[in-house]
Amino acid sequence: MGDVVSIKARAGHEPSLAQLLALTAADMEKVNEIILSHAVSDVKLIPELAGHLINSGGKRLRPMLTLAAAKMFGYPGGHHVTLAASVEFMHTATLLHDDVVDDSEMRRGSKAARLLWGNEASVLVGDFLLGQAFRMMVDVGSLDALRVLSNAAAVIAEGEVWQLAASKNTNTTEDEYLAVINAKTAALFSAAAEVGAIIAGRPHGEWTAMRSYGKNLGLAFQLVDDALDYAGDANNLGKSVGDDFREGKITLPVVLAYRRGNEKERAFWERVLREAKQEAGDLDHALVLMKSHNAIDDTIKRARHYGAIARDALAIFPASDHRLALSEAIDFCINRVH
Amino acid sequence: MGDVVSIKARAGHEPSLAQLLALTAADMEKVNEIILSHAVSDVKLIPELAGHLINSGGKRLRPMLTLAAAKMFGYPGGHHVTLAASVEFMHTATLLHDDVVDDSEMRRGSKAARLLWGNEASVLVGDFLLGQAFRMMVDVGSLDALRVLSNAAAVIAEGEVWQLAASKNTNTTEDEYLAVINAKTAALFSAAAEVGAIIAGRPHGEWTAMRSYGKNLGLAFQLVDDALDYAGDANNLGKSVGDDFREGKITLPVVLAYRRGNEKERAFWERVLREAKQEAGDLDHALVLMKSHNAIDDTIKRARHYGAIARDALAIFPASDHRLALSEAIDFCINRVH
Repeated sequence: MGDVVSIKARAGHEPSLAQLLALTAADMEKVNEIILSHAVSDVKLIPELAGHLINSGGKRLRPMLTLAAAKMFGYPGGHHVTLAASVEFMHTATLLHDDVVDDSEMRRGSKAARLLWGNEASVLVGDFLLGQAFRMMVDVGSLDALRVLSNAAAVIAEGEVWQLAASKNTNTTEDEYLAVINAKTAALFSAAAEVGAIIAGRPHGEWTAMRSYGKNLGLAFQLVDDALDYAGDANNLGKSVGDDFREGKITLPVVLAYRRGNEKERAFWERVLREAKQEAGDLDHALVLMKSHNAIDDTIKRARHYGAIARDALAIFPASDHRLALSEAIDFCINRVH
Repeated sequence: MGDVVSIKARAGHEPSLAQLLALTAADMEKVNEIILSHAVSDVKLIPELAGHLINSGGKRLRPMLTLAAAKMFGYPGGHHVTLAASVEFMHTATLLHDDVVDDSEMRRGSKAARLLWGNEASVLVGDFLLGQAFRMMVDVGSLDALRVLSNAAAVIAEGEVWQLAASKNTNTTEDEYLAVINAKTAALFSAAAEVGAIIAGRPHGEWTAMRSYGKNLGLAFQLVDDALDYAGDANNLGKSVGDDFREGKITLPVVLAYRRGNEKERAFWERVLREAKQEAGDLDHALVLMKSHNAIDDTIKRARHYGAIARDALAIFPASDHRLALSEAIDFCINRVH
């Protein structure tokens, strides 16, 4: 992963979210207030379960995009905060449903909500949070923002169904895999960034620039996530190496290793992923195969490609602290792999 | 159930949905077209699963309310059709998630989708349909209609969580039970009727009249549904007697029989519902207890009460074929019990 080092060297410091966090800190407190006040219900189970997930310390990257974008455009109002909270609710609802679909046991380093409250509650509280998200968006009253976010909601769900239908299919092509993560991850990053421009009343060309920034950042983010699942260490983001492998998930490192492998190697991937017959030592062997085919390094290279597109999407905007922070977020997402 | 007969006699003919069906037939064809065209996706699983549920012949009572209301107000446009399709998608999404939460095996007389495609697909396709519903509402562009429908989405989910949390609690009061069905059933009936008035551009007082009509119709509908689960016959609506009993659901017939019963009877209800320890003959015994306490007849009486409120809510509108059809829908809902 020499490239990672070289980017760090070029930037002169470790790329981090510090700048983005600092610029959005005040607004993010308001987002947290809105989130807490909209996860309230007489039905105790709702604040309990929602609180578990909300307080478990996600980075809140998606709502930060909305906040930073709106501020980059000099938006003086308060609606960006409500939209950012809606974005985080949409994301939280998706996580709850994802964990049910994937039979996940961990989420953000804690026990998945479904193990504590049951699959039933996770499904229904997810629905409630999605309903609250739409209520909040309607309160903002921008039909354009509503269009972008409701579109994202449908696209995300479509991507999840697609992933479910394609799951364990070792023949998945890189293009097919990209279409899936475009829908299930990049769509919300894209919408989060775009509504920042919409609420600030910017012209259409700037909506599309932010849409492109968000989409490509989302792709880079997901690809690095996929790589981390094979290359990360346990201290990294509460994920442990091999989660995707054990769940039989087809991600880009697998797609590359499978397609670059010989017949015997493909038979291995089919046994452990498609047939889900895993034995001791299989994960280690998978890592050896990935290394021999540069599958992880090349996944990071692909991420870097989308990161570059995201960076260029921002280039039409005048230099500013906010633009710099959004740009650093790209490097941060990519350089999570050490 | 002498009252049922007397209402039939008073109306002079069997109350039916015939009038409502006839008045909305042309629009309903357009609703069906919109539904089919929005359940389309490159992801084959989506039209397959959605089509299974959509074609399985529900009555489409909720979208009919939107169509008939808009037409009663002389609405000349086409947006009521899109809103009606959104309402049906919201309902379909709820059914998909409900079946997962309840472990249901049957839905509308067919195998539940979750048994054919799995719980995972049911959760995700439900999310997709909800996303599509919001997309369609946004296309209509009425923030007032969006507010009413997004509010319903959150309230429905809240009601479902409430029901889950209160499930098997034999101490549930009638008021608590009413609050649950107000949320999980009446909210969508209410929103469906109200958006008919909104899209027709009527004054606020007429929105609230339609909201009240829909809400009380929904309460009556749900209470009769609860009664049918103990009093219906197998040919009735694809439901078989005792489904709620076997699932341990607390519905109004149970609430009444429990509260009116003696200590021994309450111990029976606690064993079969709260502890879910059911033996052969328990359902028959439950029916005997309900009969001895008039629990089913009185559930129908309560339904009739809400039906009367729904009828009076319509009284401010001038007599018309549409008003008559909406009024007959109340009698139809109540007289499903024979």
